[in-house]
Parts: sequence; structure tokens; C-alpha cells
Amino acid sequence: MAVKTSEITLRTKGSLDMIDITCEVEEIVRKSGIRNGIAVVFIPGATGAIVTIENEEGLVEDFKNVLSQIIPQRHGYLHDRIDNNAVSHLRATFLGSERSFPVVNDSLLRGTWQNIFFVELDVRPRNRKIVVQVTGE
Amino acid sequence: MAVKTSEITLRTKGSLDMIDITCEVEEIVRKSGIRNGIAVVFIPGATGAIVTIENEEGLVEDFKNVLSQIIPQRHGYLHDRIDNNAVSHLRATFLGSERSFPVVNDSLLRGTWQNIFFVELDVRPRNRKIVVQVTGE
Amino acid sequence: MAVKTSEITLRTKGSLDMIDITCEVEEIVRKSGIRNGIAVVFIPGATGAIVTIENEEGLVEDFKNVLSQIIPQRHGYLHDRIDNNAVSHLRATFLGSERSFPVVNDSLLRGTWQNIFFVELDVRPRNRKIVVQVTGE
Repeated sequence: MAVKTSEITLRTKGSLDMIDITCEVEEIVRKSGIRNGIAVVFIPGATGAIVTIENEEGLVEDFKNVLSQIIPQRHGYLHDRIDNNAVSHLRATFLGSERSFPVVNDSLLRGTWQNIFFVELDVRPRNRKIVVQVTGE
Repeated sequence: MAVKTSEITLRTKGSLDMIDITCEVEEIVRKSGIRNGIAVVFIPGATGAIVTIENEEGLVEDFKNVLSQIIPQRHGYLHDRIDNNAVSHLRATFLGSERSFPVVNDSLLRGTWQNIFFVELDVRPRNRKIVVQVTGE
Repeated sequence: MAVKTSEITLRTKGSLDMIDITCEVEEIVRKSGIRNGIAVVFIPGATGAIVTIENEEGLVEDFKNVLSQIIPQRHGYLHDRIDNNAVSHLRATFLGSERSFPVVNDSLLRGTWQNIFFVELDVRPRNRKIVVQVTGE
């Protein structure tokens, strides 16, 4: 039994920048030496999210549009009286900070089109550290 | 410490078919030999989701209606220029591919009305393999 | 390798009461004796949710408003023919019953503004037991 904690470092462009981190996560799992267990992909921060979605340009744009319709940027959020990114926090809370994946026979399990993305929800470019933690045997 | 990976095989009817897999998941946990730990219920695929909801016919219908209002089927999704299931992907991304449950004293922990469902979001009937992975001692 | 299961007991005020449980969760993790692993924060129940959000009064109010707009209280939910809390169940299904956090060097990993809240979605005050399970080494 072992626990291996790794980081992926990113520079984002701000507002709804989406970055495919599938290859980096898979490499971390392969190199972890853990054959079977759980991989948690986690953003320590209140204005980003981890999602799974196919890496197709049109679909990624559709996702940004739908998210912006469900939780729109607008005047009047109470949090914007003291800051300028209420919408960033709200979208992050709905999407969630982490996704968990089974690790089976040295590999992260996922569907062919089920890529792992970091979603930058903050209004400005950020340096991000995404944590990938593999627990298993 | 052990990791046990199992599968539940399903045949779905397509668009918003919802299948209660609580009994199958609980049986897998009981038979895993793991007394305490984490059970991850995961769909490897980009057009399905795992949720918890009470197994009451009216409520399940309410859920389908609300989901269809939040992320509606409509013309103009960019992904539909190259495929026919943008809405399936978008709903899956919002609902998520997995749920995790504590395993305590040989049993999956859940509330009385907190059943586990697979949600088929693809537009056509599919054969599905849902992964249940139990990690613990 | 060990698994430690603990509970946080709460009394809620009903409809959209939100309670910050970050301190309690962090204390459970510190006292678990587990240096590295996964902490799952889970509500066993179909009408509550666990989310992460900054503990700022205005933002918490914004979240309640946005949630109430996305899944509104209204007449006509089918589940309300047999009960009075369809909207509670629906909101819980969308938000999710659990969040997972990496535990690194004896501490729960999170961003500065990424607090952990229990969201009471039921229409009446409830006594709640939230489960915090730490699995690791």
C-alpha cells in the first residue's frame, strides 16, 4: 500500500481557459508504481474546477457557452461588493474541485473520449498547481 | 489493505434512461472482503453519469425534466457539426462520471432514500460497463 | 495503511441553511494519525450536499440565489404528489453527496478560500451526521 502525491503546474489565460491535462495525469499514474487504487485529481483553490469532457474544439466551446448561460456574469452579485469574481466562485462550486478515477493494472481508467480538463474560472491569468494523488497497492 | 475492481454490465435504452444499480453496488461491496474504505462507482465513458437520487418514479421523471431544462436539446451546438450528441456530452460533464461512498463495517454507507443510479445520456441504446472499485482494509 | 471513520453532528435550520465544517474536518484529519491519503466528506442522506465555497457572507447568499434560480421551487413536481420536498432531492442530486480531498503531511489540502460546507436542502430543520473518512498511511 502506498500514497503518491504529485503536481501539475500550469499557466492559464484567465476566464474559462480550459487545459487538457489527461496526458500529464496518465503519466503520473504510470510512474507512481501503484498498480491498483484511486487517483484523485484536485485543484486546491476556490476559482478553478476539474471536469471530464471530450477534447473537441466545438464541444469545449459549447461547454463554455452552457456554463455561462447557467451561471451568467451579471451585475448584482453580493460578493462583488468586496471582490470582482463572484461568478468565478459560483461556477467552481457547481463544477467541483476534484474528480476521482480508478487505477487498474497500472493505468488510469477512462473512456476514449473522456479527457480530463482543468477549467480556469478566475477572471485573470493564474499560475496553478493541480494535485494528482494516487492511493493503492 | 486491498483493492478490488468489479464491473456491472447494463443494456440501456438511450436518452435519459436511468437504472438503479444500488443492489449491485452493495453486493459488490459485501463480497469484496473489504471491511472499511472507499467505494468509487465510475462510468468509463463521456456520455453517461453516476448520481444519487431516491428511487421514486415521479422524482426520477422530475430529474429528467430539470436536467433537460438546465441543458436543453437544441440546434446550434458546435459539436453537432461533427456528431449528433453534444447535449449528451454536456450533461455528462455537469453531472460527473463518478460518486464515492464510505464503506463501514462491510457495508456501503448511504441514506435510506439515497439510491445510486446510472444515467444514460447518449442518444442511442448502449451496452455499459460500470466500474465499482473498493479500496481499504 | 489505515481507515478512520468519524462523524460531525449538526442541527440545521432547514431550507438552504449552510454550515461551514472546515475546522471540524481538518481536526478529524489531524487526529486520524494518517499522514497521506484521501479524506472523503459524505452526507448519508438524499436531501443534503457537501460543497466547497469561500466563507464570505455575500458569496454564500449569491450561491443560494443561483441554486434557487437553476432549480427553482415551483408547483408541479411529480414527487410532490407524495411528499413535499421534490426540490430538495433535485438540488441534492445536482450538487452531490460527497467531496474528496488529498491528505498530505498530516493536513487536508485545500485553497485558502476553499472552505467545506454542508448545505441543508430539506425544507425543515434536521439533525445531520456527516461522515469524514480518511484512508491512507
